[in-house]
Amino acid sequence: MSANDRPTGQQQTSTAVAESAFLKACRREPVPHTPVWFMRQAGRSLPEYLKLREGIPMLDSCMRPDLVTEITLQPVRRHKVDAAIFFSDIVVPLRAVGVDLDIKPGVGPVIGQPIRTRADLDRLRLLEPDDVTYVTEAVGTLVGELGATPLIGFAGAPFTLASYLVEGGPSRNHEHTKALMYGDPDLWADLLDRLADITAAFLKVQIEAGASAVQLFDSWAGALAPSDYRRSVLPASAKVFDAVAGYGVPRIHFGVGTGELLGLMGEAGADVVGVDWRVPMDEAGRRVGPGRALQGNLDPAVLFAPREAVETKAREVLDAARDLPGHVFNLGHGVLPSTDPDALTRLVEFVHTETAR
Amino acid sequence: MSANDRPTGQQQTSTAVAESAFLKACRREPVPHTPVWFMRQAGRSLPEYLKLREGIPMLDSCMRPDLVTEITLQPVRRHKVDAAIFFSDIVVPLRAVGVDLDIKPGVGPVIGQPIRTRADLDRLRLLEPDDVTYVTEAVGTLVGELGATPLIGFAGAPFTLASYLVEGGPSRNHEHTKALMYGDPDLWADLLDRLADITAAFLKVQIEAGASAVQLFDSWAGALAPSDYRRSVLPASAKVFDAVAGYGVPRIHFGVGTGELLGLMGEAGADVVGVDWRVPMDEAGRRVGPGRALQGNLDPAVLFAPREAVETKAREVLDAARDLPGHVFNLGHGVLPSTDPDALTRLVEFVHTETAR
Repeated sequence: MSANDRPTGQQQTSTAVAESAFLKACRREPVPHTPVWFMRQAGRSLPEYLKLREGIPMLDSCMRPDLVTEITLQPVRRHKVDAAIFFSDIVVPLRAVGVDLDIKPGVGPVIGQPIRTRADLDRLRLLEPDDVTYVTEAVGTLVGELGATPLIGFAGAPFTLASYLVEGGPSRNHEHTKALMYGDPDLWADLLDRLADITAAFLKVQIEAGASAVQLFDSWAGALAPSDYRRSVLPASAKVFDAVAGYGVPRIHFGVGTGELLGLMGEAGADVVGVDWRVPMDEAGRRVGPGRALQGNLDPAVLFAPREAVETKAREVLDAARDLPGHVFNLGHGVLPSTDPDALTRLVEFVHTETAR
Repeated sequence: MSANDRPTGQQQTSTAVAESAFLKACRREPVPHTPVWFMRQAGRSLPEYLKLREGIPMLDSCMRPDLVTEITLQPVRRHKVDAAIFFSDIVVPLRAVGVDLDIKPGVGPVIGQPIRTRADLDRLRLLEPDDVTYVTEAVGTLVGELGATPLIGFAGAPFTLASYLVEGGPSRNHEHTKALMYGDPDLWADLLDRLADITAAFLKVQIEAGASAVQLFDSWAGALAPSDYRRSVLPASAKVFDAVAGYGVPRIHFGVGTGELLGLMGEAGADVVGVDWRVPMDEAGRRVGPGRALQGNLDPAVLFAPREAVETKAREVLDAARDLPGHVFNLGHGVLPSTDPDALTRLVEFVHTETAR
């Protein structure tokens, strides 16, 4: 962002944000260039992030507005991406409503007391804006600092949150989660419904504080067959999207390994469907159908290859996305921790140059 | 298997094997019932297996014909499955050609010196039958013991072996593997070609000793986009299938998360394409096309749900597979370690009863 395109007043800022390439692409309008951002751009691949986080546990950093602001801004400054993603973790709203949990380095979220019975669920209360004042504060500061760059709000989807709560931590096979889903469909539906309310409230806080878009991350949805997703998960994710529909901000929906679910993830109410690298963007467009933009989908592992190979693969993504109604360039999953940050910066520049109109 | 249908001579045995429900389904012929076996049926979910393995490292157990025979037979005795799967590990042929590796409990295969350069590849020699006499011996004994039950031979596919060799162990993101694949396509192709020769030799040993079918496991292929699979992996897997085509035994091809690759995995030369639980069997049939049988695809996590739920989901699989030219019932991935063995036994009985003609 150069000095000349930094607006001076609040009104000008919000107009500039609304006219940003990122929001235009989300709305399927013509863009000056294909916008780029990276899932997990704010975080572990940046030396300035690692320095800032030194000695500070992950959850603590998500609850300190100064850190959240700085970490969210770092990749925007460095890579010149077209959108900022709010630095948080999908378990933050659970912690905010009193779930006993911690994020263990090298493991992930660990839950003190898993939820597997009706009595467990009864202890899970709804989220109030006062539970997350640090979020309101950080978003407010960020919107000011970001100028014309839109801020994407962020929440984990009900199924993924349920998997953490039921398993008690990260799980490869989701045995307990699926046992509950198949074995006690009523309790399952109530759990997902409660999580939908918590998630919607968490997104509302971010939108009301100034976020210009939201992304619902259903990290584990790819573990489900389509019929199970439709019956047991989609209603809760749709409830989240419905709850924030009135704000008119684009709603992005992403999960890894969700090739079979892309159509359903759109149907849940997304304006933009995120695609992992396994499905070519044109095929993803056919599965999602008209009326929605797509986001994706360079394999994050490609960034470990030489520069020419990265550009070849990035061009393949752009070519496959050419006829989509709207395309936000992204990786097909989060930035891998040992990625060279310069490779990301070069990739942003490459996509901007290749697609400049 | 009751006493009356146990044949007395070698000739009768091989006729009975050839007429087994499993081989008929692989050949897309009418079957008396839908045959069932489970990936990883031989192993960690069975108490008799855990007892037998006590104090014996995984790789040692794969190299002792007495143990291999007993472990392969255990699930056949217990569950009355329609086929035995040879107990081994995908790294066994690599160890047999002198690769410095070990299987670490809770981790998986760990390679002493990863392969990342031409010089590394030059050290990887081909497999001779004399390298794996314990395999020949175990298969021979098994074929005698199994009577009318077919034995499925087993090998890891070139891409999956390459990933272990390049990464140095199990990998979630295959960064080094993909960096090599994209960054040095010639070295990559030569590595895959060498691994195809090793794999083909390993399968030939099993077929010549009496295996009635083979399964090529490409555990990690699901990490690839279709264009990369077609260009950088399919040629090597096709070479393996071609090398054993002359024996006329059914060739099964499986990888998890391979919904986008099912057509290509068939094209590689499979007679039977294995399907994970994410793609409904009827849709998988459309992707694979005519002329090949399918294998799959109950979610292994379903076995943690109550019996009625397991039966409902198993019936969904059977219904979706109804119009396939040939169907071998299996899980959509390996048996999970904490699965109740009785749930597996009941599932075999259920599928047999439901599909008896």
